[in-house]
Amino acid sequence: MINFEFYNPARIIFGKDTELQAGAQIAKFGKRVLLHYGGGSVKANGVYDKVVKAIEEEGLFFMELGGVVPNPRLSLVREGIRLCRENNIDFVLAVGGGSVIDSAKAIAAGACYSGDIWDLYMDNSKLGELTKVLPVGVVLTIPAAGSESSTASVITNEEGWFKRAIGTEAIIPKFAILNPETSYTLPPYQTACGASDILAHLMERYFTQVSNVDFTDRLLEANIRTILNNAPLALKYPENYDIRAEIMWAGAVAHNNLLNTGRIGDWGSHDIEHEISGVYDIAHGAGLSIVFPAWMKYVYKQNVDKFIQFAQRVFNVDFSFDNKEQIVFEMIERLEAWYVRMGLPIRLSHANIGSDRLREMADKCTVGRTHVGNFQKLTADDVYEIYKLAL
Amino acid sequence: MINFEFYNPARIIFGKDTELQAGAQIAKFGKRVLLHYGGGSVKANGVYDKVVKAIEEEGLFFMELGGVVPNPRLSLVREGIRLCRENNIDFVLAVGGGSVIDSAKAIAAGACYSGDIWDLYMDNSKLGELTKVLPVGVVLTIPAAGSESSTASVITNEEGWFKRAIGTEAIIPKFAILNPETSYTLPPYQTACGASDILAHLMERYFTQVSNVDFTDRLLEANIRTILNNAPLALKYPENYDIRAEIMWAGAVAHNNLLNTGRIGDWGSHDIEHEISGVYDIAHGAGLSIVFPAWMKYVYKQNVDKFIQFAQRVFNVDFSFDNKEQIVFEMIERLEAWYVRMGLPIRLSHANIGSDRLREMADKCTVGRTHVGNFQKLTADDVYEIYKLAL
Repeated sequence: MINFEFYNPARIIFGKDTELQAGAQIAKFGKRVLLHYGGGSVKANGVYDKVVKAIEEEGLFFMELGGVVPNPRLSLVREGIRLCRENNIDFVLAVGGGSVIDSAKAIAAGACYSGDIWDLYMDNSKLGELTKVLPVGVVLTIPAAGSESSTASVITNEEGWFKRAIGTEAIIPKFAILNPETSYTLPPYQTACGASDILAHLMERYFTQVSNVDFTDRLLEANIRTILNNAPLALKYPENYDIRAEIMWAGAVAHNNLLNTGRIGDWGSHDIEHEISGVYDIAHGAGLSIVFPAWMKYVYKQNVDKFIQFAQRVFNVDFSFDNKEQIVFEMIERLEAWYVRMGLPIRLSHANIGSDRLREMADKCTVGRTHVGNFQKLTADDVYEIYKLAL
Repeated sequence: MINFEFYNPARIIFGKDTELQAGAQIAKFGKRVLLHYGGGSVKANGVYDKVVKAIEEEGLFFMELGGVVPNPRLSLVREGIRLCRENNIDFVLAVGGGSVIDSAKAIAAGACYSGDIWDLYMDNSKLGELTKVLPVGVVLTIPAAGSESSTASVITNEEGWFKRAIGTEAIIPKFAILNPETSYTLPPYQTACGASDILAHLMERYFTQVSNVDFTDRLLEANIRTILNNAPLALKYPENYDIRAEIMWAGAVAHNNLLNTGRIGDWGSHDIEHEISGVYDIAHGAGLSIVFPAWMKYVYKQNVDKFIQFAQRVFNVDFSFDNKEQIVFEMIERLEAWYVRMGLPIRLSHANIGSDRLREMADKCTVGRTHVGNFQKLTADDVYEIYKLAL
């Protein structure tokens, strides 16, 4: 285990009807609210109306900025920053999933930053310049990104289609309201993509080269099993509260950094995937179900015992030690079968992506980075090989 | 799963040499420090000197109050409150284990409370009157109570030997410094008592009548297995960093309320034990290893399936369902065997406690409470039966 610091002051308000508390929670921090959301789904499922009512009942001023799309765009972030500055906004409320929250965080940071917010995404070493951020609150409707209580924000710049992240305590939301009922109306594919994203957050943390991380290994396995068991049930019983609740809470804990304590996560698959969804604009979760099996096949030899522990504890792969590789590949097949059961692609071809831009994506993936991933430090050539394994 | 709110803003600073950061962390919150500790162990193992140096290097004023004993006393709390008021103390630093931290929390609350702090312990409904608390910091030396990032403080009033608790967000420490090396010098019995306390915190949360708590069940099982595996190793290899680290981090997470989310813990065994250690002044962890098996034998019929899940997932008890009771009692025997291996008592007689005051303790346990525990709501007569089972 390595030294670590863990700090997560996000207040989680979880359960039925909790969105009605949005106004009272905001009032602790601000009076002039930017209400940020995506397309029409929050209006269709009634969440928007409940939140607006809660804000109005608290007597707060608010203005709206909708239109966040998956892989949220820098241009809308810039518009949000302008709105905040022109209207003395002092609180940003995100109502939606990870894209909306990431966009809200970028706006909250950019509104207080004198330079160009994109500079911080391209060069994380400048994050120290961010001395103030507007407080952000969340009403979550999609369990997936874990952004509701995380330090992270991922934004896509349409000029060049760069997808880049920042991570800092300053953008952890002040509160996150999680009502599992708001996820009842998610289409099956989006439920699946969300589960894939959560699973990826857990596997990125799991596959570490840091040894003696028994406790967090076990916590991660517990969370992974929760997702593996409950996500297929959510497809079958979309309006079952308990199933949706397990996924929503597990998804938040997966990414609040507790499960990263004392270890160094990999995050290579995320970076490799970001190039795919950046270029082809496919769902992040669908990109991850394509990348992760290929990544595993490419890197497992760096620490085969870690993969065997995962195979046995998470996927119940029976084993003797006569052939370690068989155990690893049996696990990968079970993982792939789970993705397929969830209706997700496990090859680039399933998402109608060919081989023509793989080299370009591999090269771009390493721009501004010395390497990709930590379990094995990957070069552009390595990333290219992983893309080919995923064809 | 039931609705819940989770908020824990304690900053955990974990690892080797982290006590050297104490001064810089305190300086974020205050300038005049009460340094609170127990007996001579923090001086003997060098932690005291390092912390004092860190405080002095930061140029902070400090004064000392040592002498906290296990089952920390109200009289010393009152002395601490007086010192804080007379010297304009604005920060309380606890250096030690749970008793020192609980005492520090009581002092920090009492220093800002116009009434008698003990009233809040005897009547938790008055906690709303506590509008301000001095900030508390922790340098932990004993993984056990989990007080380093919890909302709880347990104090014993020598007048009548009442042991009572408060629980409020306001007393969560601002930071907790956890260096596993500080636990190297713990005597085996204290290591064992600490592990027993941590295990009890987890089992109190595990045995709930709330259904559909899959995720937190699994997190609890992960934490319990970590303690069951590592604590006996700590007795064998007391200066192994990794083993001590697993226990110290698992012990903090066990009690930071994450593992309580969406469920209602039992806490009967804690209340039943508090009477024993209150009257006989034995170590809390040793009282718990006596009480828990007896409590299990008395209440398991209220939800035998929960006990079977525990038996299978935590203690690997093999099972058919022909005789559910056999599975439960096999688990209890394995738990008892673990306590014995740790050198802990599992019967009152092992701690030289006879039957003469059981009725008195059972009656006292219910003073100011409508019932004891939640898995089965126990009356004074039930508690008496549990004491008898523990003889």
